[in-house]
This record gives sequence, C-alpha cells and structure tokens, in this order.
Amino acid sequence: MRVALGQFNALVGDLAGNAEKMRDIYTKALACDVDLLIFPELAICGYPPEDLLLKNHFLRDGRATVEKLAADCPEVTIVVGFAESHQGTNYNSAAVLQAGRITKIYRKCQLSNFGVFDERRYFQPGTEPAVISVAGLNVAITICADIWDVEWLADFLGNAGQIQMVLNISASPFHMGKTGQRQAVLGRCAKKFNCAVSYCNLIGGQDEIVFDGSSCFADSTGKIAAQAKSFDEDLLIADVVPVGGEVVQVKPMRPLVPQPSDLIDEVYQALMLGTRDYAQKNGFKKTLLGLSGGIDSSVTAAIAVAALGAENVVGLTMPSRFSSPETLSDAEELAKNLGIELLTIAIEPILEQFNQALETVSGWNSKGIAYENLQARIRGSILMSLSNQFGFLVLTTGNKSETAVGYTTLYGDTAGGFAVIKDVPKTLVYKLAEHINKINSRQIIPADVITRAPSAELRPGQKDSDSLPDYDLLDKILKGYVEEDKSAQQLVEAGLPQDVVRSVICMIDRNEYKRRQSPPGIKITPKAFGKDRRLPITNRYNSCGDR
Amino acid sequence: MRVALGQFNALVGDLAGNAEKMRDIYTKALACDVDLLIFPELAICGYPPEDLLLKNHFLRDGRATVEKLAADCPEVTIVVGFAESHQGTNYNSAAVLQAGRITKIYRKCQLSNFGVFDERRYFQPGTEPAVISVAGLNVAITICADIWDVEWLADFLGNAGQIQMVLNISASPFHMGKTGQRQAVLGRCAKKFNCAVSYCNLIGGQDEIVFDGSSCFADSTGKIAAQAKSFDEDLLIADVVPVGGEVVQVKPMRPLVPQPSDLIDEVYQALMLGTRDYAQKNGFKKTLLGLSGGIDSSVTAAIAVAALGAENVVGLTMPSRFSSPETLSDAEELAKNLGIELLTIAIEPILEQFNQALETVSGWNSKGIAYENLQARIRGSILMSLSNQFGFLVLTTGNKSETAVGYTTLYGDTAGGFAVIKDVPKTLVYKLAEHINKINSRQIIPADVITRAPSAELRPGQKDSDSLPDYDLLDKILKGYVEEDKSAQQLVEAGLPQDVVRSVICMIDRNEYKRRQSPPGIKITPKAFGKDRRLPITNRYNSCGDR
Repeated sequence: MRVALGQFNALVGDLAGNAEKMRDIYTKALACDVDLLIFPELAICGYPPEDLLLKNHFLRDGRATVEKLAADCPEVTIVVGFAESHQGTNYNSAAVLQAGRITKIYRKCQLSNFGVFDERRYFQPGTEPAVISVAGLNVAITICADIWDVEWLADFLGNAGQIQMVLNISASPFHMGKTGQRQAVLGRCAKKFNCAVSYCNLIGGQDEIVFDGSSCFADSTGKIAAQAKSFDEDLLIADVVPVGGEVVQVKPMRPLVPQPSDLIDEVYQALMLGTRDYAQKNGFKKTLLGLSGGIDSSVTAAIAVAALGAENVVGLTMPSRFSSPETLSDAEELAKNLGIELLTIAIEPILEQFNQALETVSGWNSKGIAYENLQARIRGSILMSLSNQFGFLVLTTGNKSETAVGYTTLYGDTAGGFAVIKDVPKTLVYKLAEHINKINSRQIIPADVITRAPSAELRPGQKDSDSLPDYDLLDKILKGYVEEDKSAQQLVEAGLPQDVVRSVICMIDRNEYKRRQSPPGIKITPKAFGKDRRLPITNRYNSCGDR
Repeated sequence: MRVALGQFNALVGDLAGNAEKMRDIYTKALACDVDLLIFPELAICGYPPEDLLLKNHFLRDGRATVEKLAADCPEVTIVVGFAESHQGTNYNSAAVLQAGRITKIYRKCQLSNFGVFDERRYFQPGTEPAVISVAGLNVAITICADIWDVEWLADFLGNAGQIQMVLNISASPFHMGKTGQRQAVLGRCAKKFNCAVSYCNLIGGQDEIVFDGSSCFADSTGKIAAQAKSFDEDLLIADVVPVGGEVVQVKPMRPLVPQPSDLIDEVYQALMLGTRDYAQKNGFKKTLLGLSGGIDSSVTAAIAVAALGAENVVGLTMPSRFSSPETLSDAEELAKNLGIELLTIAIEPILEQFNQALETVSGWNSKGIAYENLQARIRGSILMSLSNQFGFLVLTTGNKSETAVGYTTLYGDTAGGFAVIKDVPKTLVYKLAEHINKINSRQIIPADVITRAPSAELRPGQKDSDSLPDYDLLDKILKGYVEEDKSAQQLVEAGLPQDVVRSVICMIDRNEYKRRQSPPGIKITPKAFGKDRRLPITNRYNSCGDR
C-alpha cells in the first residue's frame, strides 16, 4: 500500500482555497501511484474555525466542499478532515473519498477540550470505529487525540480484527518539545497494534498557534521510519508493507529531510512561520516595529526579516532625552545588518506638549510612572498612525516575562497587531539572539545588545532590575506558576525565595487586565497567555494580600 | 418545610469572603427557623472561576472552605455549590451540610459549554441523582442547566420516588428577557413533577457577565409564588407545604418585592450593577470618562453616577478644532446635571506636534483617516495618563453597533478598563437615555444630545451616517448576523437590502482584531462580543470578497 501524507497550510474559513490546494496535492500523489492520500484534521475549513462552527451555512458550505473534492479526485482513496453536521448534531469527522464520493465517515471520539482547544463547544464525540480496506490492507482511522490514550484505543478497536495501519489526521499545535512527545505516542501505538502508523498534521500559523507539520510514519517496531518537513508544506510518500508475523515495514520514497537542529531552532522556525502567516493571511505586505536598541525589538526584527524579507520590514526609532546614544546606535546598526529601512521620529516635542496639557490638572507628576507610561503611549500612537496611513502591520516586541508581570504600558509598547515573542521568556530571547547570529554566521544582533543590562529608558538611569528580579529567577517562577499551575508554597518548597515568589505572583495576577487587551502572539511553550490560559480579571484568589 | 434562598454577591476567588457572607446569611435564616438554606452554584468560589480550577491548591482550599462552613453552620440543612476534586476528577457539585459536616454531594450532570460557559474544560458530568429528606419532605437537588431539559430530568429522577421539591442552584447570567425564559422553565419543571421548585441564583457582576439573582419559588401548578430582588442581594424565605393529592403550595414570608419595570429597566439595572462590581471588586474608587457631548458618553456617565455616586465619576472634555460649541456645552450641561467634576484638556497643541513629527515621513496625510484616528489616540493617552496618575478606572463609551463594525479607534476611544455599553446597540442607547431622564423625572441627558445626528467630530462636518447605514437598519443586521448567526443570504431573504447587508457583515468580520484588544463590557443581549462569541481573527470565510 503506497500512502501519501498531504501536509499543507490550510487557511481558516477558506473552503475553496483549501480544496484547491488539496486538488493540487492529489494530482502530484496520483503521479506517484499512491493508493491512499491523507489530509489533516478539519483540512477543509482549517483549524480552529471557532464559532464559525455555529453558523449552519458554514457547515453546509463545508459539506459541499468535501463532496466537490471527492468528485474532483476519484482515482485515489482520500481521507480528509471536515466539520460534519448530521441530523442537527456536529462532529469533527474524517471523510473517506473513493470513486468520486464520500464512502465512509469516521467521527472523532476523544474531543480535545483543554489548553487552546474548545472542541466540546462545537462537537459531539463519535462512538464507532472505522476501518477501511486499501490495497488489501486494513486501515483504522483516528483523529488527533484519539491516538493519545492507547489503552482506550485498544479497547475501542477491540473487535476490528487485525489492522495493518492506524491512520491519524491531526491539527496538533507546536510547543517546545512537542514533536518528541508526539513521536513517542505514535511509537507506542504502533507497538500496541503491531502495525504501521501514519500521522498527517497541519502546518501553518493561525492567530496564536502554529502547526508544525512533522507528519510521519512509524513502522510496527515503533520506529519513525519517515518524516515530513517541519514548519513547511510537504508531501511524504511511503510504502507500507506487511512482511508476515505481525511485522509491518515502512519504505519511504526519499531520504529523511533535515529537521530543526535543536529546541531553540524549533522555536525560531515556529516564530518565523507564525509571523509570516499572520501577516500574509490577514493581507499585510509590510510590517513596522519600534526599534529601541534592546534585545527584544532586535530579535523581533530579525524574525520578521527572516519571515517576510528585509524589504517588508520597517524599523522606527523614537528617541527621547532618556534614550542613550548607545542604544540608538545599536538600533541603527541592527537595521543596517538586517538591511531594513529605518525611520526616526523624536518624541520629545510631543511629550512636552502632553506634559504641559496634563500639568493643568492639579496633582500631575511629570517625574512619575504616569509620565513614563506616557512616553510609551506616544510611541504606540506614532506606530499606529503610520500603520493607519500606510497599511503596515505593527509588530509588538514584548516578551513573556514582561507580559507576565505587566512590565509594559497598555496602548504603549503593547500597541500593535501581532506580538511575535509574547510567549518567549526573556532568558530564551537571549538564546534566540545567539541562535540568529549563529545561523547567519555574523553579528546580526550587535554584541552590546546582548550584553547590556536591559532598560526601558523611560527615566534617567532606569534598569529592568530596579523593578524586577533577575530574569533567571523570574523565568523559573513563571514556569512554575504560569505553565505548571503550582502554588507559591510549592515554589518556595522547591527552593525559590519566598518574598520574590510572592511579589512576582502578585504582579502576574494583577496584570491580567493588560494581557486581556494585548495582541495575539505565538504559543511556543506548553502554556501561553491567551486562549491557552483563561483567568478572570476580577479575581480575589491571589498573592497580593488583598484580603 | 421552611426554605431560605441565600441570593448573594460572590466574588470570584474570595473563598473566605464568600464563606463569611454565607455565615451571616445563615445567622439570619436561623433566626427565621428555616429548615433548609440554599446558596447558588459554585457559591464558595464565585462563578466563573475559569482556569483557577486548574490549580490543585485552589480546589483544596475550596474544599476546606466548605468543610469550615459546615462546621460553623450546624443547625440548618444547607445546600451550597462548590468545585469538587474527587480522586483526580473535578465536578461542579452541590454539598449538603448537616450537623457540622458534608453529608451528601450531588454532581451537576448537564454541564454548560456554550456561550460564555466552558464547564467541559474543567468538569466531568455527574451520573447519580441526589434526593435528600428535609422536615419529612423529599427534595431533589439539581444544578443550573440540569433543570432546563425537563424530559431528561424526568428520566434521570425516574426511580427517585415522589418528590415534594426540586431544588436548583444556579449561576445564570443576565440577558434581556432571560428572567421570563427561566420562570417558564421552572414552571414546566414544577408541573412535570407535581412539586414545588426552589431556584437560587447568584447576583453580581463578574467581568463580562452580570448575574441578576431573581431567585424564586414555583408551586406545583407552575406559578411563581415568591421572587427575590433582581440585581441585589436578598434572603427569600417561604414555607413549602404539601396539601395532598400531589399539590404543593408555597407560602412566602413577605409580599412580592418590586421588580424591574420593563426590559429597558432590566438593562439599566444590569449595567449599573456590572459597572459597580467591576470597579469595586477590582479596587477602584473613582472612574474617569471622556465626555464628547454625544449620546454614548452621556448615557455611560449617567450609569456610572447611578452605580458609584457622582463624587466617584470624573468627566473630561478634550476639544479639538472639529468639536462644535454645541457638543461642548452639552457635555458641560450633562456634567452639571449629574453633579460630577468636569476637566477640560484641549488636544490641539498636542495634535499639532504629532502632525509635525509625522509629516517628516513622506506620504503622511494630515487630512486622512490616520489623522482622524490620531485625535482619538491622543484622547486615549490623556485618559490613561490621568488613570495612571490618580488611580481612576477609565470607562469607555463605545456601543455595540460601532464595536461591531469597527467604527472606533483602537487605543483611542477603546482605551480604558471597562466598556459599560459595549453590548448595547445604538438604538437601545437612545432608549436608555430616555429611560434615564424618565426615572430621574428631569432632563439629565440634554434633549439636544438625544436629537442631534451622531458624529465622531474628527473632521469638519463629519456624521456617522457618512460611513454607516441608519442605526435602525444596522442594528437589525447585527441582531441577525451576530446574535442569531444568520447568513447574508438569510438576511436578504428576510427583506434587508443586499448591498448594505454585505458591507456591514464585511465590516464586522474585518474588525475582529479590534474587538480582541478592547476592554470587557457587560453582556445584556443573547450574544455579546467577548467570550460569548469567539471568532478567529485570521478568517477567510467572510463577505469581503477576499477570494
């Protein structure tokens, strides 16, 4: 049985466009004599369609798209994910297309309803297995999470007889280390059923999430025998060959393609793809970002250039009297290294007018935090004005550490359409900077930017460390509190200093309101701010001693 | 059997505070010789606790709080909602407290997972009915949605024997007309089981939602025999008396209290409570809002004054050369009528400096839309600067109609902490204005404000009608497209003009990114923007002809 995995970049809601891509892939697969062509979960409508699924006309249009795809692609057995409405109930389904029509439908049983997933909002679980025969072999169809609990799956497929391949269609978002977890799951499944496993995942960025692809085949020993590209479209073809005695081999039609070199490279590629897709899928050609000469904006700019090309990235420096000559010249050097246009607009005269106006209100302090934040808001307004005028997508440059503790100005440095490194802790931003310099084999990000103590430059001599603990410690607390939902007590018992733990957690809790109004950014950790982590703004369960 | 409904305002996460309130209510109920005291769904932790439920320490602390409440309140049978963790699985449960301890637990079966609800993210459904005996009567315990499908409930309680009362604890959010729907459900249930129904709902605002209370008793004929206040705490006590032949009467201990006079009054009270609770529960004493002399900011100011007192509301006019003398004087008159402080900061000199700075970028147009939006952003920055300096909560003044079509400036008029009338369509804003004048028996909101054609005053002679259809028509399209998920085709078939329908729907789809970054506001319709309606930003299924 020759099997092809059609790993492609679906666009949410673009029924016709997604079908067109699949028809092109079908043509290629047909030329390679494949017996079975597999597309990802909800490939017809893209993932996640969210409340589009509450529109009956959307479901009806999706069904028509599947039927047309079947009619257009009659010569290969195809399995493709779609949102099915059947007698008033909706399912996350896989359609089997054969000889021009839908011949079987499998409905996902293990609906994902955690993290970024809300499948129970839209779908009812299926109850019946589906095993199809292709080229004389028995193939069991599963969808994404169906395969993660192998004991459940064994029970579910108990009466299905001997299976030569478990097929899984997925829309599995990326986070650091996810590929390894997934391959372990596939290996376990292969060994459990003594069969091959074929796994077809989406690729592409969709708002906060990135699908990494990494579609693959496991043979019956659990070994990954063939793997598609990560973070790019690919058509992976292999022969699945039973050789007797419950051994099923997988013979790929080409050698293994290069994969990300390490976890940092994975993150880098995820950020590139997420940024490129957010811009392009939303119709933006050019992006704009403020360059402060600091590490965050430098890394963001480098990612934007890698994603969209230097000609589509515009930098803007907005110096005030608190900006040092060093950071300004670093911003200039970075722009030169990246080959991007650099604009400069000094904010001092605007700041002065604002301050004069605000001084008419008794109690205004032109040396306080409000005055500091005002500088950031002037910069945000300038960026947004240029965005309005020229159609640029503004990229924000805040990292996960500052997003967590609210070391940001709402409508200031958070103003923009897309937050590239929102889920990247500060310590990882430094590693990305080094990675960027390494893969470019030159100092794209100036050495000073990496070594200088971080500062917001909103008052004389300001340093991040005036307000925040060391980023090494801060990021440890973040990981425990945000990503692992540990309590303050657990973190202290694990050896972290009590006073710092309490004050950091209090800052995280207090700043939910800012995060609620900040732009989406790319999830790269097991738990990102956004739809992955949903906390009330009004919340008295905190470490601030409010009671 | 004497039954008390302890309708109170729980604060999410405030375990100790909520328990304290319940102990006080217990003391009052005890003095009235009640047999059974009922508190709302998840009353221990407040509703909805969202991802706090993913923290094991939160669940553990909640359990300890229930146990302490039981120990503190031994002399009455109490039913109280809490989040239960049992052998690694979580349930939305009702604890029965008797003689100082938890004697029984009922687990909600019909978990709500639509609209604003995400219960499947946190809870597994229960499977067993719970019927308790109180003062010789059989009482079946249910939680919120358990009672909405009476056929299911009849099946579920099939073997429970004759029941004299179905008890329901709820956290049921308000929208226009919800009270009537709910009472119909309770009546249906009473008639189905030939028994009384006691219904205890939360009150209070929690981020985007408001619980209206309106707890009540139905007798076995389905009649609402006693009803608690709406939008306020209350302790409603009644005797539930079986009189033979499957007839159960309800004898309230006091006459019916006044209820909202009509749907507009309901909305008005919901907005007041939502605003008051958002401010107070988040620790704000004073609020600040921009007064343009238009209807939206006038209504918002009046609601804020009703919610928090005139001394806690500060108005700010920020005129430019496009502001008319009429709107300025209306803003002043409104502030005088409301008795609030009014500040004035002219934006012209700041605008001029911004414009000079932006003119250094080739292509900047000081007469275009970017220049219009800049004015709004200057105003947003001034409001936020005063908020930062003085600790004011900034209230935004955008209505649902403009929020829908994106007739707003991101970080401009959308800048603030809470969006009071975010879910109020423009046509309803006018009705609220008239209602406010009526209940105050004087012209709080000047007549001109109500009759003048709406304008953003961002360019000479601008009118909303230059960019938008008539609000009557716009609001009809909104209702169909946003609240009822109808297609453009369905709306046209219902008689709405095709070109307007398509252009409005395109605007709604295109502006999802602005809504994603706008502050929370109070849900008063069946479907509000926010967690009630979740659409992807990146979305090619639209009416904009993008393909």
